[in-house]
Amino acid sequence: MSKAPEDEHPVKAFGWAARDKSGHLSPFNFSRRQTGDEDVSFKVLYCGICHSDLHSLRNDWGYTFYPIVPGHEIVGEVTEVGSKVKKVQVGDKVGVGCIVGACDSCDSCNNGLENYCRKMILTYSSKYHDGTITYGGYSDMMIAHERYIVKFPENMPLDAGAPLLCAGITVYSPLKYFGMAEPGKHVGIVGLGGLGHVAVKFAKALGAKVTVISTSPSKKSEAIDQLGADYFLVSRDQDQMKSAMGTMDGILDTVSAAHPILPLLGLLKYHGKLILVGLPDKPIEIPCFPLVMGRKTVAGSTIGGMKETQEMIDFAAKHNITADIEIVAMKDVNAAMERLAKNDVRYRFVIDIGNTIAETKL
Amino acid sequence: MSKAPEDEHPVKAFGWAARDKSGHLSPFNFSRRQTGDEDVSFKVLYCGICHSDLHSLRNDWGYTFYPIVPGHEIVGEVTEVGSKVKKVQVGDKVGVGCIVGACDSCDSCNNGLENYCRKMILTYSSKYHDGTITYGGYSDMMIAHERYIVKFPENMPLDAGAPLLCAGITVYSPLKYFGMAEPGKHVGIVGLGGLGHVAVKFAKALGAKVTVISTSPSKKSEAIDQLGADYFLVSRDQDQMKSAMGTMDGILDTVSAAHPILPLLGLLKYHGKLILVGLPDKPIEIPCFPLVMGRKTVAGSTIGGMKETQEMIDFAAKHNITADIEIVAMKDVNAAMERLAKNDVRYRFVIDIGNTIAETKL
Repeated sequence: MSKAPEDEHPVKAFGWAARDKSGHLSPFNFSRRQTGDEDVSFKVLYCGICHSDLHSLRNDWGYTFYPIVPGHEIVGEVTEVGSKVKKVQVGDKVGVGCIVGACDSCDSCNNGLENYCRKMILTYSSKYHDGTITYGGYSDMMIAHERYIVKFPENMPLDAGAPLLCAGITVYSPLKYFGMAEPGKHVGIVGLGGLGHVAVKFAKALGAKVTVISTSPSKKSEAIDQLGADYFLVSRDQDQMKSAMGTMDGILDTVSAAHPILPLLGLLKYHGKLILVGLPDKPIEIPCFPLVMGRKTVAGSTIGGMKETQEMIDFAAKHNITADIEIVAMKDVNAAMERLAKNDVRYRFVIDIGNTIAETKL
Repeated sequence: MSKAPEDEHPVKAFGWAARDKSGHLSPFNFSRRQTGDEDVSFKVLYCGICHSDLHSLRNDWGYTFYPIVPGHEIVGEVTEVGSKVKKVQVGDKVGVGCIVGACDSCDSCNNGLENYCRKMILTYSSKYHDGTITYGGYSDMMIAHERYIVKFPENMPLDAGAPLLCAGITVYSPLKYFGMAEPGKHVGIVGLGGLGHVAVKFAKALGAKVTVISTSPSKKSEAIDQLGADYFLVSRDQDQMKSAMGTMDGILDTVSAAHPILPLLGLLKYHGKLILVGLPDKPIEIPCFPLVMGRKTVAGSTIGGMKETQEMIDFAAKHNITADIEIVAMKDVNAAMERLAKNDVRYRFVIDIGNTIAETKL
C-alpha cells in the first residue's frame, strides 16, 4: 500500500489541493523529499495561475492524479542547497517552471531541450523518478534538482516575473526558434490572454513589428497603448483581415479553443510560419493549396528547455518585461479560478503565497 | 475579337492540343512570338508527361483555357537567340520547366523564387505578358525569355533529363530548403511515382538515409534494388509503421490523393518536418497534440525558382540522376494519358517530339 501524502517524504509541506474533478481547492498537508546533493529547496513566495492548472484540476486532459497541488510558475527564496549545487546559494531568488525532471541523457536533454524529452516530468501531477507524484507551487515550499531551477535576476520582480516561467517561455521559445521576431519582421499574435500579452512584449523587445489578432475589438487600446503592439486586427472583421493579407512573416497562435486556421494562413507572406502553442482538442483543418503554393509552415511548440528558460528570464530582466498581473490571496484561489474560467483577468493571477498561505494552515 | 491561335503571332508552330474537357489531344496549328532581344527559341526534342498535364487537359482545377497545349518538361536544341541573350547560344541543349514568366521585380523574383511570384506565368494555359495564352511543350518549337531557360549540362540525357524540370525540382527544392536530406539525416518519401522515384535518388545523392513509404508492398524491390532506398515501409502495415515511429527527420509527401497525415507525423522525430508537394483537394486534418508536444512542422512547397532549377540540373548531372522513363511517340499521347490515369507507368512518360511529331502534322 502506498503511503499517505504527508508520510511519503521526511519534509513536511503544506499547500492547497483538489481531491476530485470538481477541481475545488482546499488546504492540504503533504510532504517533500529531503534536499539531495544536487537539489535546491526554497520557500515559495509567489505562484502564477496558468490556464493549464484549471484544466488539470478538472482532469480535462485525462491524466490528473488526485490529490493534485497545481502551480508551475513558482518563485521563491532559496532555503537550502545540496552539497554539489553550483547554480545558486541560500537567499537567492529562484523559480521553477513546468518541469522538474527528465531523463537527462537523451538527445533532447543533451541539447538543452528537456521539454521535449519523452521522459519529461511535469511539476505537478506527474510521476517523479522515485515513483511518487509531484506537487506544484500552490504550497509553502518547493524542491527541485538544480538543473530545473531558474535563477532570477536581481531586478526581476518576483510576483510579475513568476508567469514568465510558463507563459513567458512558451512564447519566447517559438519566437526565437522559428526566427519570427527579428528586426524587420512582422509577427502576428493571436489571442490576448496570459500568453499573448507577454508574447507582444517579447516580440517587440526582439525587434519585430507586432500585430495583435483578436476576436474582441475592445482589446485594441490595451494591445496598442498598454502592451506596445503596432497594429490590432479584429479577426471577425473581414475587411480588416483582407487588408492585412500576405503581410506577416509569422503568427504565434496562443488560442486553445477551436478556431479557423485558413484566415490566419492568408495573413502570412509566402514562406511564413504559423506556430501553435495552444492545444485545441479537435484536429485543425488545413487546406493544402496555400501551404504548397506559398511554401507556408504550420508547426507547434511547447514551453522551452532549461537553458532557454534562463536565457528568457535574463532577456526579460534586461528589457523590463514582466507579466501584467493581479495578486490574489491563497484563500481566494477558488474565486480566481472561477474568474479565469470566464477569462476575467488582465492577464494573469499570481498567488501571494509568501504572505497569505500561513493563515490557511490546517 | 481575339485572333485565331495560328494568326496571333508571326512564327508558325505545330503541336497537340485538347479542345475541351474530354482532354482528348489532337494535332493543332498555332503560332509563337518572334525571338525578342532576351528570348531563346528552340526546337523541342523531348517533353515529359506530368500528372498536372492530365489534370489541366480535363480542367480538374478549373483554370484551363482551351485549346490547351500541355507540357512543362520541355527539352530541345537552341535555334535562335536574341541580341542580348548571354546564357546560351545556338546549338546548346536547353530546357523549360513549369514557368515562363513572372513580374521579375518582386521580393520573390529578386530572390530567385520566381515560382512564388504572385504574377508567375505558367508554361501553358496561362496569360502571358502580352495577353495571349501560353502553349506548352507538346509542340515542335518553344520560346522563352532567357531567365526561364535552363541550360542542360553536356552529360545529361535529354530524354531522361526532361522530367527533372518539373518532378526533379519539385522534390529537390524542399529537400534542400527544409534541410531534410543532409548527411546523417533520415528522410521518408511518401509515394513512389513520378515525383517520389526521383526524390529517392536526390535524397540519396544529398547524403541522407532514405525510407520509401508506400501503400503497395509490390514496390519494395523497385524502391530498394533499383532506386537505392535504404528501407521500405508499407503504410497500411501497422506493425511496420509502429516500429518506425519517431525515426525520421523529415518526410516528403508526394501523394496528391487524400490520405491520413497522423501516421506520418508519428514517424517523425521531435522537431521533424512533413513537407507536402502534392495537392489533395480536401483539407488535411492535423491533430495539434503531436505538432505542439513534438515541435513538428507541416509545410508545403511547389516547384522551385530558376536559379535553384539550374542548380538542381547541374547537381543531377554530377550525380548521374535522371528519371526512369518510357518513351512514347507523339501519336500515342492519348494512350499514354490513359495509362497515366491508371498509374501504369514506371515512372514517367516522355514524348519523343523530335523524331515523331512531324509525321502527325496537319
